[in-house]
Amino acid sequence: MVKRYLTVKALDEVFGLFGTAFDCVPSHEHLPLLESVGRVTAEPIFARYSVPEVHLAAMDGIAVISSETAGASEQNPITLDHAVRVNTGNIVPLPFDSVIMIEDVYLGEGRFTIRKAAPPWQHIRPAGEDIAESEMALPSRHCIRPAETGALAAYGITNLPVLAVRVGLIPTGSELVPHGTLPAPGQVVESNTVMAEAMIRVTGASCTRYPVVSDEPSLIRAALETAAAENEVVIISAGSSAGTKDYTADVIAELGEVLVHGVAIKPGKPVIIGRINKKPVIGMPGYPLSALTVLREIVMPLLQQYGLPVPLPVTISAQLTTSLHKEAGSDEFVLCSTGRVGDRFVISPQSRGAGVQMSAVRANAYLKLPAGSEGCEAGSRVEGRLTVPQEKAEKALLITGSHDPVIDHLTDLLQQRDLEVHSTHLGSMGGILALKKDECHAAPVHLIADDGSYNVPFLRKYLPGTELVLICVAERQQGIVSRGGIGLDELEERLFINRQRGSGTRMLLDHELKLRGIEPGSIRGYDREATTHLAVALAVKSGEADAGMCVYSAAKILGLPFVPVASERYELAIRREHIGDPRVSALVDVIGSAEFRAVLDRMGGYDSRETGTLRKLP
Amino acid sequence: MVKRYLTVKALDEVFGLFGTAFDCVPSHEHLPLLESVGRVTAEPIFARYSVPEVHLAAMDGIAVISSETAGASEQNPITLDHAVRVNTGNIVPLPFDSVIMIEDVYLGEGRFTIRKAAPPWQHIRPAGEDIAESEMALPSRHCIRPAETGALAAYGITNLPVLAVRVGLIPTGSELVPHGTLPAPGQVVESNTVMAEAMIRVTGASCTRYPVVSDEPSLIRAALETAAAENEVVIISAGSSAGTKDYTADVIAELGEVLVHGVAIKPGKPVIIGRINKKPVIGMPGYPLSALTVLREIVMPLLQQYGLPVPLPVTISAQLTTSLHKEAGSDEFVLCSTGRVGDRFVISPQSRGAGVQMSAVRANAYLKLPAGSEGCEAGSRVEGRLTVPQEKAEKALLITGSHDPVIDHLTDLLQQRDLEVHSTHLGSMGGILALKKDECHAAPVHLIADDGSYNVPFLRKYLPGTELVLICVAERQQGIVSRGGIGLDELEERLFINRQRGSGTRMLLDHELKLRGIEPGSIRGYDREATTHLAVALAVKSGEADAGMCVYSAAKILGLPFVPVASERYELAIRREHIGDPRVSALVDVIGSAEFRAVLDRMGGYDSRETGTLRKLP
Repeated sequence: MVKRYLTVKALDEVFGLFGTAFDCVPSHEHLPLLESVGRVTAEPIFARYSVPEVHLAAMDGIAVISSETAGASEQNPITLDHAVRVNTGNIVPLPFDSVIMIEDVYLGEGRFTIRKAAPPWQHIRPAGEDIAESEMALPSRHCIRPAETGALAAYGITNLPVLAVRVGLIPTGSELVPHGTLPAPGQVVESNTVMAEAMIRVTGASCTRYPVVSDEPSLIRAALETAAAENEVVIISAGSSAGTKDYTADVIAELGEVLVHGVAIKPGKPVIIGRINKKPVIGMPGYPLSALTVLREIVMPLLQQYGLPVPLPVTISAQLTTSLHKEAGSDEFVLCSTGRVGDRFVISPQSRGAGVQMSAVRANAYLKLPAGSEGCEAGSRVEGRLTVPQEKAEKALLITGSHDPVIDHLTDLLQQRDLEVHSTHLGSMGGILALKKDECHAAPVHLIADDGSYNVPFLRKYLPGTELVLICVAERQQGIVSRGGIGLDELEERLFINRQRGSGTRMLLDHELKLRGIEPGSIRGYDREATTHLAVALAVKSGEADAGMCVYSAAKILGLPFVPVASERYELAIRREHIGDPRVSALVDVIGSAEFRAVLDRMGGYDSRETGTLRKLP
Repeated sequence: MVKRYLTVKALDEVFGLFGTAFDCVPSHEHLPLLESVGRVTAEPIFARYSVPEVHLAAMDGIAVISSETAGASEQNPITLDHAVRVNTGNIVPLPFDSVIMIEDVYLGEGRFTIRKAAPPWQHIRPAGEDIAESEMALPSRHCIRPAETGALAAYGITNLPVLAVRVGLIPTGSELVPHGTLPAPGQVVESNTVMAEAMIRVTGASCTRYPVVSDEPSLIRAALETAAAENEVVIISAGSSAGTKDYTADVIAELGEVLVHGVAIKPGKPVIIGRINKKPVIGMPGYPLSALTVLREIVMPLLQQYGLPVPLPVTISAQLTTSLHKEAGSDEFVLCSTGRVGDRFVISPQSRGAGVQMSAVRANAYLKLPAGSEGCEAGSRVEGRLTVPQEKAEKALLITGSHDPVIDHLTDLLQQRDLEVHSTHLGSMGGILALKKDECHAAPVHLIADDGSYNVPFLRKYLPGTELVLICVAERQQGIVSRGGIGLDELEERLFINRQRGSGTRMLLDHELKLRGIEPGSIRGYDREATTHLAVALAVKSGEADAGMCVYSAAKILGLPFVPVASERYELAIRREHIGDPRVSALVDVIGSAEFRAVLDRMGGYDSRETGTLRKLP
């Protein structure tokens, strides 16, 4: 019943295997020129005729016989006996052998006068200047770029033989429903082969996504037989691990052989590399970020073996904000957010949970921590690999600290001004620490002090002497979300869900409990932590907890009752030195905009009278 | 009859105009998820439901009630009363609140025994862990990446609203025939709107290419009216200059207004920027490389104003091999070949002729020489902008020197081994100078010395003391190409076409003339220079000259008679220090291959007995 991986191979060994275990011979297809962009020539491409085919005027002017122009000068203008008006691109007929620009020609009584001699073949494009008939325009294995299609069109090339690889994608799993179906509880939308197709298409390979196959060995076997017959490469999604319903390895072994079961990468370890009729069959793990890693780190290099173009990420040198620890032995890949703060890039890990697909959305970079390493300490320089164009990473605005749903809407408004926003939810204290280390542009904070004032005492304590600006996002209402509409004084016998230590909401709760003389220890579930307002509301909605504290908008979105507890000042703390940064100016500008106020009013629970107010520290 | 540009605007002024003169409002379209990759969201996208919707097992194992596991240890195994087998992704039903990995579970008599306590919520993915119902998955103006399609599919997003811009392309010119037609002499295949479509498509904009319009103002006017009604942006190809048949500016002025006629860029100066009903109309010059420059430097930034993603080139710092001079006042763009030789990038300008489209094919980079500059000296550091991915530029093999058609076939074979080859044709002496400055990996040379020996005397003279390796490509036949089959002694009264100074072929001709006692001055056309063997043969074929000297293969390709003069040693000179470079090893390897010999035999005129032979200097 319990299977274990036979042997776990290092990633480098897997690459070595590609060259020897598989043929990796692409097929060819002929495509019309415009469709061939981004594809790779399968054969050399030759010009069908010379360009130009005959001598052409290279300027607007007159075609002349050069010998007739000899001796012309300002002092000795010559009126030509033979000359003909030509525009750029016109044929220069024999016996003409030179062109004079129209600007240098004087017309009088239907004849042309010139004041400068024209050497032979001046301003003429000789036949074949660009390319000669039968000359090689493109070699094999050339990736066709948009800007060269003009040349190819001009050379008479209307369609091209390009490399083609067919990849068959088989989703397996009895709990899966196809993309586009509303899942019932316990059902999951099949999304990994969608992602696989999107990623594989970039290389020019074509994908066939087969229907979802239940966890039945005979059905998986039939699907795999079909896919292996119809494609050069087959990917089976899920079932590659060692659970009771993981049949992928067995089925591959029946039809061919399993070469590798388990690769020393994280996420993505339970990957299978098999072979059927010399064709590679990849068993891709079911966890979305494991699948992503296997696609990027194993499937892409495999497709490169077929000669397909696989873009490599641009790398940047960045300062790591948080220590990352790992066990030696596996290459580990960590999705991150990166941006330039001051004069260097900083890079922050996203959630490392393999099921949190939003990490792939939020990330604009990733790190590879090599097998030999046990991790990296905060503050060290690391090489980030970008998942966005470099210019986007250069202008990323980093917001680190307390999360509020309104930050998403702020992001939306900022993106409309061509800014890339990356927010990391570490709670208010996390934001203050990021600000202290100058690792973000703005830190959303809402920390209540014993005297009931907000934020300033904490900033003075943790960033003494640092010049800061606080900009008010809103006065927002916090309260108790529940299914039954209970208040803070009615938590007895209820299961509570709290926010993480260091979050302003937890500190507000503690403050309010103290005011009411309630012992935190008396609240069941006080130690259970969620990291966002919506997560709290959702835990209540799903029955995981009976009550929690969050902002009004989170309760409203999920249609849950909300009993107010307190209103608090939700501000962005910014280092004064960054106020002049165009990203930060845009942020300040958007917070002060009518559009943003409209968002606050629409969401509810935000008092916008103080929105946009600046406070300066010290 | 002669029009001149009214005012020539600087490129920066043009960018300023975009924001004020045009609305630049994109339209929207809804696309299925997979088709939306690379496109930009028009609105924020929200999750349709929570993911996961219920608590799920995060591991293969057993679901347990955590309180029942308390106290379990190696010394005190506990056999559980309640537990249920779950695989990764299965629902964890109430009252279970923790999962224990299958590897840590011992099964006996149908019951599970554990040796370690399980804290609550261990290995469980709580509902909403990834995303909560109604949470913002993507903001507006987010460019969708392949790897995030999995997340979007999982969140129930099947199609997305994305930005759309329709661009109408009108080719004008009575000499034009549509792409796919064989042009008659004087006709030209319309290729600029093909290139425009390929380049514009990259941004996600869609293109309509209208039929070719003759140089008739009324027809151009009708086409422009239609295109302006059907698109957000219109590009008219050609007719933008000041020739007798350049009607574009007048027609735009009739239907709207001409804002700019002439921008201070080179190539591309005669561009028009006009406006019809607040929509931009670009008059694009007809020269292919002018059109390319206008598309890249003006149309792309314009599309960016609509929020479309326009990739910026990766830049590298490189050492310029050849001085580039220009007049101050215009931004000048120069297509180049670049590659890493030793420890730095070197960059060599391609032909600057605006009609030589092969430059766009051969180039893997370009330079921008700013308006204020008068050029750059050879040896200076410049910023190259890549037109290929950086990893391709990193592995470019640079071959500089004498051209032979066989070099194209060598390139083809090398590309099949995943090398990017860039060859620059500067003649044998140009190759030796590039080698001296260490600006290429290999220099093809065939220089005859007075004593009849090849190459070595020149290399010893120009690179004294430098360790070199010479690898023989072939002994090749040079001879006289003509339409009538004449030999070297029959040039009297014929019009000759020579090769450029410094080329080995010209030196061979001089050597052979001297042996025969023929005065170069007695040969008509001795001073007319072509730069390749094929160009010489083509000039003969087109009637531009009666005879020239070239290799046999060039005459053969064009079906012309060839009278042998001499055979010569065509070798690649390589610095010894680069022999270990993997690119150079591959080059040596390919020259020695049976495939390459087969190419030589097929082309004819090459004796392959010495092919692959190495000579070492000193």
